[in-house]
Amino acid sequence: RTIDLNGDVGEGFGPYAIGRDRELIPLLSSANIACGFHAGDPRTMRETVERCIEAGVAVGAHPGLPDRAGFGRRALALTAQEAADDLLYQLGALDAFVRAAGGRIRHVKLHGALYHMADRSEALAEAVAQAVRRFDPAIGLFVPPDGLLERAARAAGLKTAAEAFADRRYGADGRLLPRGSAGAVLERPEEAAAQALDIASRGVVRTADGGTAEVRAGTLCIHGDSPGAPEIAAAVRRALEREGWRIASPFAP
Amino acid sequence: RTIDLNGDVGEGFGPYAIGRDRELIPLLSSANIACGFHAGDPRTMRETVERCIEAGVAVGAHPGLPDRAGFGRRALALTAQEAADDLLYQLGALDAFVRAAGGRIRHVKLHGALYHMADRSEALAEAVAQAVRRFDPAIGLFVPPDGLLERAARAAGLKTAAEAFADRRYGADGRLLPRGSAGAVLERPEEAAAQALDIASRGVVRTADGGTAEVRAGTLCIHGDSPGAPEIAAAVRRALEREGWRIASPFAP
Amino acid sequence: RTIDLNGDVGEGFGPYAIGRDRELIPLLSSANIACGFHAGDPRTMRETVERCIEAGVAVGAHPGLPDRAGFGRRALALTAQEAADDLLYQLGALDAFVRAAGGRIRHVKLHGALYHMADRSEALAEAVAQAVRRFDPAIGLFVPPDGLLERAARAAGLKTAAEAFADRRYGADGRLLPRGSAGAVLERPEEAAAQALDIASRGVVRTADGGTAEVRAGTLCIHGDSPGAPEIAAAVRRALEREGWRIASPFAP
Amino acid sequence: RTIDLNGDVGEGFGPYAIGRDRELIPLLSSANIACGFHAGDPRTMRETVERCIEAGVAVGAHPGLPDRAGFGRRALALTAQEAADDLLYQLGALDAFVRAAGGRIRHVKLHGALYHMADRSEALAEAVAQAVRRFDPAIGLFVPPDGLLERAARAAGLKTAAEAFADRRYGADGRLLPRGSAGAVLERPEEAAAQALDIASRGVVRTADGGTAEVRAGTLCIHGDSPGAPEIAAAVRRALEREGWRIASPFAP
Repeated sequence: RTIDLNGDVGEGFGPYAIGRDRELIPLLSSANIACGFHAGDPRTMRETVERCIEAGVAVGAHPGLPDRAGFGRRALALTAQEAADDLLYQLGALDAFVRAAGGRIRHVKLHGALYHMADRSEALAEAVAQAVRRFDPAIGLFVPPDGLLERAARAAGLKTAAEAFADRRYGADGRLLPRGSAGAVLERPEEAAAQALDIASRGVVRTADGGTAEVRAGTLCIHGDSPGAPEIAAAVRRALEREGWRIASPFAP
Repeated sequence: RTIDLNGDVGEGFGPYAIGRDRELIPLLSSANIACGFHAGDPRTMRETVERCIEAGVAVGAHPGLPDRAGFGRRALALTAQEAADDLLYQLGALDAFVRAAGGRIRHVKLHGALYHMADRSEALAEAVAQAVRRFDPAIGLFVPPDGLLERAARAAGLKTAAEAFADRRYGADGRLLPRGSAGAVLERPEEAAAQALDIASRGVVRTADGGTAEVRAGTLCIHGDSPGAPEIAAAVRRALEREGWRIASPFAP
Repeated sequence: RTIDLNGDVGEGFGPYAIGRDRELIPLLSSANIACGFHAGDPRTMRETVERCIEAGVAVGAHPGLPDRAGFGRRALALTAQEAADDLLYQLGALDAFVRAAGGRIRHVKLHGALYHMADRSEALAEAVAQAVRRFDPAIGLFVPPDGLLERAARAAGLKTAAEAFADRRYGADGRLLPRGSAGAVLERPEEAAAQALDIASRGVVRTADGGTAEVRAGTLCIHGDSPGAPEIAAAVRRALEREGWRIASPFAP
Repeated sequence: RTIDLNGDVGEGFGPYAIGRDRELIPLLSSANIACGFHAGDPRTMRETVERCIEAGVAVGAHPGLPDRAGFGRRALALTAQEAADDLLYQLGALDAFVRAAGGRIRHVKLHGALYHMADRSEALAEAVAQAVRRFDPAIGLFVPPDGLLERAARAAGLKTAAEAFADRRYGADGRLLPRGSAGAVLERPEEAAAQALDIASRGVVRTADGGTAEVRAGTLCIHGDSPGAPEIAAAVRRALEREGWRIASPFAP
């Protein structure tokens, strides 16, 4: 009984910091590191990679759209070829720091609007899967369950881990409530811990309307930019471990 | 009797093109590809890498300062650590396209102000050499002859090739005339060819004041952003081959 | 009988040039100058403004999306507030150069994807119109005829000029053929001149399917990034003047 | 007996925040607002301008080098013409938001490396002074006392205010200790308040070596990116007002 706990980290830039990476990273089993497009820069990437490797946390790439001002959260009508090119660029850039630190990239998780766009467009999903495969076929992909991205990744022969969210509210349709809407974010650690346990143990979540929805997950996400991310991660980890779950990356040895 | 002919390529960006890469690349033995900081972008990098590999031209990285508006030609007071971080980022990004195309990065040539800054600062020179070595110790470094960069590269155990310029005028001190000054650029192909031959065969150049200066070179540079770069490269190559020189990368097998 | 001839200019960036502004500008009555987001930079803006004022060409702002790599041609899901903020920023930046050169901004023409997005979204159209009005209510807006942008501009009390295209093919629905499709661009100057005359004199264009469509225009656009833009502009101007049309900005005194 | 209290604000970018602007602004008499080059973006500029105008704080421009990753703190070898162009661009961009909010730019304070570079280069100092004058000769310039920038500003007919620093330690030579060195920043509010009072009342500061140096000031700076900036500003303001000083912009009516 193993499940992964992933978080987005390394999302600072130049003089700017986001999140409490130092506290969050040791609580994760997989870290998604921003690659300089939506966030991150060379120094931040190097420091974050080193921090992850030191903590024994599996290093993953968190590539995003080339829109720093919008933090990669605004859909951009790029072509599949552009998405593949931007992805390879970011993968390689991160890889340089990972190799210099003696590690390996274990997974890729798309960021923000790119994550959603690639799950809704067959062309984008295939471009992403093929780019990852060409870069390194041993890398796994974190994907929304049952979408186009998961299908394209499998067709490309990539390992996948379905992702669910410990700290975000689901709607009756089994999808996340939009980020801006009321109650979309679970801020109390114990709520997130309960939801994480529901997902891991029973494959369900309580939805915004009071019902339940099925949610399949090999990896659970903690949002690194929540102010209370470390507290949430700690609570989720404690709850899972108490029930006998081992917290580990699905792709690291 | 072998000498290298290198050129800066892939210096377009988005909708913008610089240089006549399609014609220039097949005339070179080594190509220095911009990595997205002073010039270049993911699409341009992919296309340029593929073009080089198809033409059997050794692929090198041409990393620069993070100053696209200034094309990396304006000195920027970054720290040695920042230079190393920026360098690793760019090396990795290019490497992703090179590996995806089945090739390997054979050399690194710093661009513009960074090339000169690293040759005048021991800390920068060491940071650059160590970053390249950590990335891949089999990569060679193109360096100004007898400077701090060459020394640091050798101390780090890197292979080096001293670089001279076929299409730029040298001063009485054996250094290039500043780019803006009169006569700094040799525009007639036959002039560049004669200078290339002087350097390759006798290790000297005719200087601006009518004298000569010693110039040691394992690789000769053709500036890709000169309008007549392909004509210059063709003339240089013809002149060298006529005298029995083999044109080849010093670092590719 | 007056009609305007406008062109997009100042779309270089740093070391990069696009278009043949020096030749094109004197043939126009209105120039749309890029403002540093999709293209343009401070130096290019200053030089282009000075060139326009010297040539007696009305200066306009050509603001775009913050996507230099995509040249502002990729739709970006920004909010109306973000669009208004980005617009004001660009208007002000250009205005500094215009005022320093003793001129005034006479019109605004949105660029690329922003032009189309604002014509299809009431919220965006209103945000754009309000931002222009707040900046300077004497500025006119170039708009697609009969769309949301024209309506919002009029509601905001702005002057408008409906725009048609001399060098682009129209479809049977009276809309431009998509940029990538066959025959979308009229490359022969005499074709563009004939289309310009049809639009100016009779308010119609010949469409791709051989029919005709009604097209209302107070300003005719020549695309500055076409290689033959100056030849097209010269032919269009000649044809119009031969038929007695005066070529002049609708908003400059 | 009037003195100005200025602070750097609006230095966030996209998702990133720096400083506690909401608390700091009402304690200032002059605010220097980042203009999108070293920091700031359109949304942040609009919000900061509105906040200043609402609080009755004089709005100033805080233009910097085009180096967001380095926060404008790394010297960049730009030409005087490039500095003037970049300055006009930023002034205009900020002015659009100021005019839209019904205000006027009252002063300019250069940021970071540009502030120091312009005080050490006659060409840069003149370019800056001329650019401000051409933009609006009623705008005043905050300058280091007795340097090239002050001289150039006066020669251009601009009003100036000599600037001293309430929260930074001075060396025996009357210059600031370098930012990185021990004790360079006064973190205790009462220390800063005492230094502010010394400067305002007697034109001296206690220096790092225990001596004193003369410091002339028409405006005192509080660094907005210090974590305790609002507490420092409050203490400085209280100390000055208690001694009968009126805190007001030298350039606003």
